[in-house]
Amino acid sequence: MAAYKAYDAVRRIAVLGCGTIGASWAAYFLARGYDVAAWDPADGWRDRLQAFVDNALPQLRAVGTAVDREGRLEMLDTPEAAVAGADFVQENATERAPIKIDLYRRIDAALAPDAILATSTSGLILSEMVEGIAAAPRFVVGHPFNPPHLIPLVEIVSSKVTDPAAADWAFGFYAHIGKHPIVVKKEVKGHLANRLQAALWREAFNAVADDLASVEDINAAIAQGPGLRYALMGPHMIFNLTGGKGGIRAAIEQFGPPMASWWATMQKTPEFDDDLKARLIEGIEREMGDRTIEDLENERDTRLVLLLKMLRETETAR
Amino acid sequence: MAAYKAYDAVRRIAVLGCGTIGASWAAYFLARGYDVAAWDPADGWRDRLQAFVDNALPQLRAVGTAVDREGRLEMLDTPEAAVAGADFVQENATERAPIKIDLYRRIDAALAPDAILATSTSGLILSEMVEGIAAAPRFVVGHPFNPPHLIPLVEIVSSKVTDPAAADWAFGFYAHIGKHPIVVKKEVKGHLANRLQAALWREAFNAVADDLASVEDINAAIAQGPGLRYALMGPHMIFNLTGGKGGIRAAIEQFGPPMASWWATMQKTPEFDDDLKARLIEGIEREMGDRTIEDLENERDTRLVLLLKMLRETETAR
Repeated sequence: MAAYKAYDAVRRIAVLGCGTIGASWAAYFLARGYDVAAWDPADGWRDRLQAFVDNALPQLRAVGTAVDREGRLEMLDTPEAAVAGADFVQENATERAPIKIDLYRRIDAALAPDAILATSTSGLILSEMVEGIAAAPRFVVGHPFNPPHLIPLVEIVSSKVTDPAAADWAFGFYAHIGKHPIVVKKEVKGHLANRLQAALWREAFNAVADDLASVEDINAAIAQGPGLRYALMGPHMIFNLTGGKGGIRAAIEQFGPPMASWWATMQKTPEFDDDLKARLIEGIEREMGDRTIEDLENERDTRLVLLLKMLRETETAR
Repeated sequence: MAAYKAYDAVRRIAVLGCGTIGASWAAYFLARGYDVAAWDPADGWRDRLQAFVDNALPQLRAVGTAVDREGRLEMLDTPEAAVAGADFVQENATERAPIKIDLYRRIDAALAPDAILATSTSGLILSEMVEGIAAAPRFVVGHPFNPPHLIPLVEIVSSKVTDPAAADWAFGFYAHIGKHPIVVKKEVKGHLANRLQAALWREAFNAVADDLASVEDINAAIAQGPGLRYALMGPHMIFNLTGGKGGIRAAIEQFGPPMASWWATMQKTPEFDDDLKARLIEGIEREMGDRTIEDLENERDTRLVLLLKMLRETETAR
C-alpha cells in the first residue's frame, strides 16, 4: 500500500461517462468533499449532470453521508483533461467493451503515475479490456448499484494484471468514503451481485411465462415478503435464521432436501419472446397506473433515503 | 361469497400448531382483535406461545397493526376443541404431509360447516393432502413469511377441489386484516415466493461452493446492494427502472441479451456436501461473532418494525 497515495491526500476524482451511474457517482464524491472532474461524450450532458447533482445532494445530506464542505464540480471537454491530475478515476462509459477499450487507450498517457482506476462495468470482464494499457496494474472493477449515490455496495474485482496493492487501495478507499466494498475473487460474467439478481429474475420471468401469477403479484411476492428481509440481511444469514435455535446446521438439515426438490423443478431459462415481452409490458403498465418512470424513481429514492437512515441509526457497534 | 360469513362477523380463529409460524399468526390475530383458540402437540408449548405473544404485541402496536381491543387467547388440549366454533382456521403443523393429513382427518367433523381453513405450508401440495376431507372445498393454502406477524405477504393457492368462493373469501379476509395476499394460480412446489427465494439461494450457495466470495461478502452483496431495493419494489418493477426513461421495453432490449449470457453460465445446482456445509457454517459463525440467534432475530425484528412503519408512512394514496 506504501506505493499509493494516502487516502487523506486524495483531492480530485475523474468521473468518465455521466449517464445515470456516472452522475450518481459524481454526486457522491462531491458530497464526500472531493473535487470532481467530469466528462461525457453526449450532447446536453452538462445540464443533465448538474440537475442530477442538484437533486442528489440534499438526499445525501438527509442520509448523513455528506461532509460539511462539498467538492467542486468541473465539466471538461475531453477525457484526457478530466483525468489530468486526478488521484482516482471512476469510469462509467457505455456498457460495451469496444467503447471502454477506446477510452482506456485515450486516457492512458494522461493519467498520473499513481492514479487508481475503477470501472463501473456491471458485467464485462476487465482482463479482456486492458491489454496494452500501461495503467492496467492500477485498474480494478468498482461496480456500484443503481443509484450509486445511495446504495452502499461496491464490488471489487481484479483483472489478471491488477496489482494486489492497487485492489487493496481501492477497497480501502471505498470503505473510507462510506461505501460497503466486497471482494469478488474471480472474474465471472455479472460479477457476484448481478448473478444473484439474475437468478431471481430468471425465476420471476419464468413465473410470468408460465402464468404462475400476475406481474403485480410476482412483484409483491418479493416486496411484501422476502424482499423486506433482504434489506436487513443477506441470503445466508436469512437461511441461518430459518433453522430456528439450531441455526445454519438445522437449516441445511431441514430445508436442504425440500429446496433440492424445488430446484429440480426450476431448470428452465426464460426466453424474451413476444409473448413474455407482451405480458411483462402489460403487467408493468397496469401496476404503474398513471405514475411515470420519474415518479417511481422519486418514490424509490425517497424511501431509500429513509431506509438507509434507519439502518444507520440502528447499527449496533460491532 | 354470499355462502360464507361476513368479515365483520368473524370472532374466533383457531391456530393449530404453535411453533414459530403458528405463534406469530396467533399474535397477529390477537392484535387485530380476534379471539384465538390455540393448540399444539409439543411439551411446554403454552409457555412458549405466551412468551412469543408477549414479545410480539408491542411490535404490532409500534407498526400500527394492532387495533384498540386485542383478542383473548385460549390454549386448548386438542385440535378438535380448538376448531370448535372457529370461523377461520390457520394450520401450522410440522411441514410433513402425513402429519398434516392426520390432523385434517382429526378435525374434519369438529369444524363449523362454514369455517374457512388455510394451511401455512411453505411447499407442500394441498391437493395431495385433502383427499376424503369433507371440508376440502373450504381449504386453501395461506402461506405467510417468517415472521408472519410482521411480513405482510400471504400466498393463496387453491387445491383442485377448493371452492373459488372460499379462495376469494380467504384472499379478502387476509386483505381485511391488513395482510398483502397474492394469488398463485397453479399448485407447484414452493408456491411462488419460495421459488424466487430458492433461485437466489441456489446461486448464493453456488457462490460459496465456487469460492467466488466469502459468505459474509455474499450476504453483503444482497443486503448492502439489491436487497435494499427489494424492500421497496419487486423484481419486475426494478427491471422496469433499469431501462431508464425507456422503462421495461428498454430494459428488455438492453439487459435481455447480457442477462441471457449470464444465465448460460449459471446452470449449476449446488449439493450440500461436507465441503459446502463446512464453508457455510464457518462463514456464518464468523459473521455472527458473539451474537446469538436470538440477538439476530431481535435485530431483524426491531428493524422490520421500523421498515414497515416507514413504508406505511410513505405510502402514496393510489
